[in-house]
Amino acid sequence: MTIHGFHRDTNMYGEIKIFAGTGCPELATSIAEYLKVPLGGRDVILFPNDNLFIRLHQSVRGQDVYIIQTTSKPVHQNLMELLIMLQTLRLDSAGRVTAVIPYLCYARSDKKDKPRVPITARLVADMIEIAGADRYITLDLHAGQIQGFFSIPGDVISAFHILTAYIQKKLPEMKDPVVVAADLGFAKKGRNFAADIHAPIAFIEKRRFGRNNEPEALTLIGEVKDRDVIIIDDEIDTAGSMVQAVNLVKAMGADRVFMVCVHPILSAQASERLGALPIDELITTDTVPIPDSKRELIGPKLTVLSVAPMLGEVIRRAHEGRSVGEMFDE
Amino acid sequence: MTIHGFHRDTNMYGEIKIFAGTGCPELATSIAEYLKVPLGGRDVILFPNDNLFIRLHQSVRGQDVYIIQTTSKPVHQNLMELLIMLQTLRLDSAGRVTAVIPYLCYARSDKKDKPRVPITARLVADMIEIAGADRYITLDLHAGQIQGFFSIPGDVISAFHILTAYIQKKLPEMKDPVVVAADLGFAKKGRNFAADIHAPIAFIEKRRFGRNNEPEALTLIGEVKDRDVIIIDDEIDTAGSMVQAVNLVKAMGADRVFMVCVHPILSAQASERLGALPIDELITTDTVPIPDSKRELIGPKLTVLSVAPMLGEVIRRAHEGRSVGEMFDE
Amino acid sequence: MTIHGFHRDTNMYGEIKIFAGTGCPELATSIAEYLKVPLGGRDVILFPNDNLFIRLHQSVRGQDVYIIQTTSKPVHQNLMELLIMLQTLRLDSAGRVTAVIPYLCYARSDKKDKPRVPITARLVADMIEIAGADRYITLDLHAGQIQGFFSIPGDVISAFHILTAYIQKKLPEMKDPVVVAADLGFAKKGRNFAADIHAPIAFIEKRRFGRNNEPEALTLIGEVKDRDVIIIDDEIDTAGSMVQAVNLVKAMGADRVFMVCVHPILSAQASERLGALPIDELITTDTVPIPDSKRELIGPKLTVLSVAPMLGEVIRRAHEGRSVGEMFDE
Amino acid sequence: MTIHGFHRDTNMYGEIKIFAGTGCPELATSIAEYLKVPLGGRDVILFPNDNLFIRLHQSVRGQDVYIIQTTSKPVHQNLMELLIMLQTLRLDSAGRVTAVIPYLCYARSDKKDKPRVPITARLVADMIEIAGADRYITLDLHAGQIQGFFSIPGDVISAFHILTAYIQKKLPEMKDPVVVAADLGFAKKGRNFAADIHAPIAFIEKRRFGRNNEPEALTLIGEVKDRDVIIIDDEIDTAGSMVQAVNLVKAMGADRVFMVCVHPILSAQASERLGALPIDELITTDTVPIPDSKRELIGPKLTVLSVAPMLGEVIRRAHEGRSVGEMFDE
Amino acid sequence: MTIHGFHRDTNMYGEIKIFAGTGCPELATSIAEYLKVPLGGRDVILFPNDNLFIRLHQSVRGQDVYIIQTTSKPVHQNLMELLIMLQTLRLDSAGRVTAVIPYLCYARSDKKDKPRVPITARLVADMIEIAGADRYITLDLHAGQIQGFFSIPGDVISAFHILTAYIQKKLPEMKDPVVVAADLGFAKKGRNFAADIHAPIAFIEKRRFGRNNEPEALTLIGEVKDRDVIIIDDEIDTAGSMVQAVNLVKAMGADRVFMVCVHPILSAQASERLGALPIDELITTDTVPIPDSKRELIGPKLTVLSVAPMLGEVIRRAHEGRSVGEMFDE
Amino acid sequence: MTIHGFHRDTNMYGEIKIFAGTGCPELATSIAEYLKVPLGGRDVILFPNDNLFIRLHQSVRGQDVYIIQTTSKPVHQNLMELLIMLQTLRLDSAGRVTAVIPYLCYARSDKKDKPRVPITARLVADMIEIAGADRYITLDLHAGQIQGFFSIPGDVISAFHILTAYIQKKLPEMKDPVVVAADLGFAKKGRNFAADIHAPIAFIEKRRFGRNNEPEALTLIGEVKDRDVIIIDDEIDTAGSMVQAVNLVKAMGADRVFMVCVHPILSAQASERLGALPIDELITTDTVPIPDSKRELIGPKLTVLSVAPMLGEVIRRAHEGRSVGEMFDE
Repeated sequence: MTIHGFHRDTNMYGEIKIFAGTGCPELATSIAEYLKVPLGGRDVILFPNDNLFIRLHQSVRGQDVYIIQTTSKPVHQNLMELLIMLQTLRLDSAGRVTAVIPYLCYARSDKKDKPRVPITARLVADMIEIAGADRYITLDLHAGQIQGFFSIPGDVISAFHILTAYIQKKLPEMKDPVVVAADLGFAKKGRNFAADIHAPIAFIEKRRFGRNNEPEALTLIGEVKDRDVIIIDDEIDTAGSMVQAVNLVKAMGADRVFMVCVHPILSAQASERLGALPIDELITTDTVPIPDSKRELIGPKLTVLSVAPMLGEVIRRAHEGRSVGEMFDE
Repeated sequence: MTIHGFHRDTNMYGEIKIFAGTGCPELATSIAEYLKVPLGGRDVILFPNDNLFIRLHQSVRGQDVYIIQTTSKPVHQNLMELLIMLQTLRLDSAGRVTAVIPYLCYARSDKKDKPRVPITARLVADMIEIAGADRYITLDLHAGQIQGFFSIPGDVISAFHILTAYIQKKLPEMKDPVVVAADLGFAKKGRNFAADIHAPIAFIEKRRFGRNNEPEALTLIGEVKDRDVIIIDDEIDTAGSMVQAVNLVKAMGADRVFMVCVHPILSAQASERLGALPIDELITTDTVPIPDSKRELIGPKLTVLSVAPMLGEVIRRAHEGRSVGEMFDE
Repeated sequence: MTIHGFHRDTNMYGEIKIFAGTGCPELATSIAEYLKVPLGGRDVILFPNDNLFIRLHQSVRGQDVYIIQTTSKPVHQNLMELLIMLQTLRLDSAGRVTAVIPYLCYARSDKKDKPRVPITARLVADMIEIAGADRYITLDLHAGQIQGFFSIPGDVISAFHILTAYIQKKLPEMKDPVVVAADLGFAKKGRNFAADIHAPIAFIEKRRFGRNNEPEALTLIGEVKDRDVIIIDDEIDTAGSMVQAVNLVKAMGADRVFMVCVHPILSAQASERLGALPIDELITTDTVPIPDSKRELIGPKLTVLSVAPMLGEVIRRAHEGRSVGEMFDE
Repeated sequence: MTIHGFHRDTNMYGEIKIFAGTGCPELATSIAEYLKVPLGGRDVILFPNDNLFIRLHQSVRGQDVYIIQTTSKPVHQNLMELLIMLQTLRLDSAGRVTAVIPYLCYARSDKKDKPRVPITARLVADMIEIAGADRYITLDLHAGQIQGFFSIPGDVISAFHILTAYIQKKLPEMKDPVVVAADLGFAKKGRNFAADIHAPIAFIEKRRFGRNNEPEALTLIGEVKDRDVIIIDDEIDTAGSMVQAVNLVKAMGADRVFMVCVHPILSAQASERLGALPIDELITTDTVPIPDSKRELIGPKLTVLSVAPMLGEVIRRAHEGRSVGEMFDE
Repeated sequence: MTIHGFHRDTNMYGEIKIFAGTGCPELATSIAEYLKVPLGGRDVILFPNDNLFIRLHQSVRGQDVYIIQTTSKPVHQNLMELLIMLQTLRLDSAGRVTAVIPYLCYARSDKKDKPRVPITARLVADMIEIAGADRYITLDLHAGQIQGFFSIPGDVISAFHILTAYIQKKLPEMKDPVVVAADLGFAKKGRNFAADIHAPIAFIEKRRFGRNNEPEALTLIGEVKDRDVIIIDDEIDTAGSMVQAVNLVKAMGADRVFMVCVHPILSAQASERLGALPIDELITTDTVPIPDSKRELIGPKLTVLSVAPMLGEVIRRAHEGRSVGEMFDE
Repeated sequence: MTIHGFHRDTNMYGEIKIFAGTGCPELATSIAEYLKVPLGGRDVILFPNDNLFIRLHQSVRGQDVYIIQTTSKPVHQNLMELLIMLQTLRLDSAGRVTAVIPYLCYARSDKKDKPRVPITARLVADMIEIAGADRYITLDLHAGQIQGFFSIPGDVISAFHILTAYIQKKLPEMKDPVVVAADLGFAKKGRNFAADIHAPIAFIEKRRFGRNNEPEALTLIGEVKDRDVIIIDDEIDTAGSMVQAVNLVKAMGADRVFMVCVHPILSAQASERLGALPIDELITTDTVPIPDSKRELIGPKLTVLSVAPMLGEVIRRAHEGRSVGEMFDE
């Protein structure tokens, strides 16, 4: 897709300007290249006292600014960097400020399923607003309802458009594929994915037991025997559930196993575990950067699809005041 | 459970005062009886021009006021009645105002699953806050995340404590019971219910097809043959899905069918449909009042368990500054 | 008056876009025709459970959107429809959203004239703001002070410009016309109307009596004998006061009686009553739609002047950033 | 009426504390005496650079504080003094802060009756809220709707309870008394006053003419001949309208003339004019202090009734969490 | 510096419009002349009751409006005038409103250095925001932190760019110049000034003593003997400290004395005192107007440098969306 | 000082409850011991994905809760922990929540001294408020104005009461002590300290030079020869300035050198540097915990005075609604 230059006089929010935090520099660069707009110069300094300092190299007065920052590890520093940059842009009289957050931290802390716990995702939304974001763009929130935590408008898009397209190309060579939702909270989105590739769906049910909530047992509900299995979830964190899921479907007679997720968090021993797992391919995206050390541990089964063109196109349309929904025929 | 009198000097929020809207008068009366506190006098007048007018009979200055109002049909009038009453209480200098909403309307409009649609549940939360509620108490929100739509604190409790206890008493006479979640969005809560009664779970998957989203096909994932089936959901609206679910499990060889839900919305032809269905029992609560005409259509298979003692106890603890969570061993 | 096309590059708020609620479809269509701008496509669905759902057919990203919705009967549904549409537009990243409300409900609940009652007009203003309106346009608020209930800017214009012009054309054939204010709360605006047509003014005083505020007596203050009388008020609700007013001025020797109001609420038996009244003409506007059934009851004495060109011109000027006041030589 | 001591443990807002600004020191002292609570010590310093400085002599932490300040001349200094004191109390962690404002400035700037003018009364309300008031108490707002400009609760009471009671005692010696509303904007309140003393009402209509809005003519609507006239308004500013009103009713054959108002602003030459007017008595209150120099100019016809016991009782009830409405049988 | 015309279509905030309050009419005129934009017509009326009234002569709908108002004496009236004008502009639907405040009152009340005192500068910032300013422009705040009291963005610029340039031209004829900070709170800014002109710095330390904080003693820290001294501060209020400073440096052997400040408040006897002081020149700006009477008292030693071109250029760049910082090579 | 038990019925904010974050566990324990109130149980879990999770062990409904958390290194995690805990307490319906922050991070980012930089201290204040703090307590903000960044009330107290008392005891054995302010921004507070111990003051001036702001030169202004020097600042970060200061005063002939600061940040090589410096004593507090490894590097010259009794007493008075100022005779 080609992109025409942006002209100020066709835009009510001022000229476009793109800044990147330090959370996902490669993705930010790819987005900037897609848009043919250079990344804005800025200093991000971490002082010895652990305080961050940010300085922009040029004025953003009256401009339509997008700040790209993922909030994966180091989570709190990346989040604070985003917030400080938002305030800096606002205080420098930017015309409009959009936080582009490929992966939004704390999205799993989205409800009080027991008393006396936080809803940290709402807190994060409040912080982003108070810091000065006029809008936000993000990908595959753990729960769609989190969009309702913001009072500012935003574009929450899905990388499953990309993941599904990739799988669809592989379908002809797959054997009776079945989708397996690794978590019941992902049941509905898993069903949508399965429907998109015209495959049946099965579920893994995990029960916890006793005072300390130890996992009791895993049950597979649905059929996987002699089929290629596509295990699906929104993110892979420590990969603990994924290991269990693969073992279970294999034990139930599954043939090949593919694993699909949007956000490759890959905490703790996740990369080692995934490297050791009998799976054919792990398909994910670059919403969270995967350092080379982890890539090596996982090995060649890792496929990373870039969300850069999609995010770039959303930014372009947001800037030009055109529909984002029609990118996805919605 | 007996309840002691409330004494003003033991309470930082003033004396307790309970008002009822016109949405669920019987439930409000039951709660007031549980608390041994009379309902406050108020006029609620619907003028010929369709405008509501509210007048309190006594001052609520410096008092800890609870207004009980469900927001079922007529939804907008009930909601507006709640909002006007909240504002009236606030402007009359109540010490603290808590909206007690057994059933919260618009909870299914909780996310933008396609572009250019509202998140009405967030709008409703905003309206309740702007009208003057300091806190809210509600039951079984369609999605737990809706609690994050409010910036005021609240108690979201679950009538499943009551429903589960009822089912547990019936378990000894049941035959290999299996829980069936009627909607994949209820998969996780259905699993919790199944775990509580130590039963397996199965799911009904519904796929929509084509431009107009007509339902393509229903699939049962899991085993129901020769078992007693407990179909479960948070609410029954037109009962269309329930009819499909019962037909499906029957076709798959289910033995008896029980139906469990919290909110008996019972719109359109729901009561006729439920009356005609081959189910043994429909177990629900009084968060939404069921008029006699509907009760007759459904017939003797209807069991309504009251949430009044539970809501009354939550109000009492909220007033006295005691834990609500410990009511449920949390 | 002809209107030129709107060009995006001459406007800081984006392209103009007009949507209509279901409250006053004819008026909305007339406004759209005046502006030569098509009404935006949208679905407004009332589900069986009494919940509204709204979906826009195209993106409004970065556009200058006007949503036309009157809030007459069914008041609460019309109001909620307006609020949901405002939120939908805001969440879809509209550039600016203006609520165009020909008749604003609850405007008579504008002060606490006794304790423990609401100021519902303020609540309605708060709700319109929280839902997402950046501005509002409305006509003849019951009290001008209601404009101060909003913290967003708005254009409150008067249909009396239209009504006065109409009466002025009839003046030559009138006999010593005198204006009669049907309610003392309308005394000042009645005086302004009388001054505009160079007629004297008289007042009807109504006293209430006793505990239950029964009306004690009606008194006419001023002279109507052998004169053509123009009874004036901002709205006609049940027409009860109007019946009393006509009877009183007739009893005091009035000649012909004309009745003028902006908002034809026409609740309850208003149409029958007006049909039966010995008045020569009832002159009103289309801020509230009058169904054919009511028109027939009132009969040929009904004259409805359209506010569509006036509202259309206000929208046009608001969009183009031009003065609205100069429409009225202010 | 006697008042008992206040005890902290019977009150959720902390101990009562009363402060006075410099606007109405005598009234503040009278209120404090009524309540048997000493005025709190504070410094109010006007520096040579025209900046005010305020310092409290003791902590107000966790106390229920009332700050009494009228906002008559010097209006802006008195208003700023009130705002600074509100902030000081809030920052010193007062438990609750109530602004007691016997006369609220800018109440006549309450609507946009032409384009491009302010609604300053709303601005003043916003300022009082942002400075830190939790509640307010005031008397006879120019328009009742101004209460809707505040989002905090407040008690707006009327000194007409006092003025009416005073007139009622004089009624037996009056000759066919008639109430005359000096301004059509006061028509409804004038009617209420007339109804309370069972007298008829008449109106003075003033028309303005031409580009510069010069007054065209005054008309008396109603009967005053050979009657004692009670001219009534909410405030007397320059007394220009009052002079016209007296001349008009005298010209129309009125017998004695009494003048009643709540707020004796007495700007410019008001005192001289009133002193020279052929009126029998001017009955007003102490919501605005009248210096001795003005009292002398007006002479013995001036009667000032104190609102101190009424305000004191409202404060007492607000502090104790008891109804204010029942002071007035409402 | 020449300035090109402003064209609406190159600007996202609408056409530029400049209004002036009554606080600094000459400065406002100079700024308008610099910008070649006429001052907008408006009425500012002070009614006999001390209430201000403002009316704009033309619509500001959708325009980029700058209101120039200093808040020197009469402080509260000037401040209220600014606030009312801000609200008027906002309610008239201005596209963007910027408060240009050459001298911001109450900036010395910026912290609680003892308990139970206000932070009035924060209150003033809150008032400016609530009245409707979208942005602000001001000069040399007493403490830079006051910028953090605003949540809206603003440009805080320094007239020291002008003052330093003026002094630099005089340096060749000066004898070993030394900068003396008249107040320790100005130590850091004084150092910056000294560094800019490559001169050393000395400090005057004032100690207060005893219960009533009487000044104990003045000490000069640093060297001034046989040097030309430049005493520096942000403002001169009553000039009391300046008199002490001059006497002290003279006593310590200083040669000539120059005095430099931004804001010539000149309260109380300041002008007389300065006229009588043995100083060679008092260099200041026109952020606060100096009436002729004061100029005469001070005499020919007074040099007033205009901030009009600087403020005009800042307004121009703010309007055009260009960097302000680069005016100062930042 | 002994402390009596707290009784709920003497307090309008509910029972006292104290929680500690993980930032300063020893200080929190000392405060709890001072107050004879146990620390509330809570889980603070850092998940492998770097997300924090918090759960309270008991309900805080209607209680007066103090959460003690310093925001030193790891700054962002400590800050987020504070914010999440604030939200958790608020959502659990605490009666009042006070953030007790011995050391507030980002306080040096308190103004825009150049364009396009943040005011992070304001952002931090906004975050603390939005998370749910009703009040805050902190110690020795870098600039007193930061108190104005909060719109909630707070107690900002000074550990210099403790440090001064300590020094005063040592004064008799000191030789002509002189106070040296290590930074001109600390000039005024340094003067106050010097005045308290009746010593003169001197200043260190640091000039930066050239494009990259390299330090040009250090100058001592004032006299230190043959005197004991007390170098003073609010915090010691990397100790770079302190090393320069000590070298300078030693070079200028100082006798012994003492170093005094409130917040021992001790970043980077600070401890090594301080250990190697020729100073007699470094006197500081426990607002930031100093791990044993650093203590060993600094050696026996380190004296740490605890702020626990002072903070404990402030909490106690805040809870009881008593003056904090009178602790310091203010």
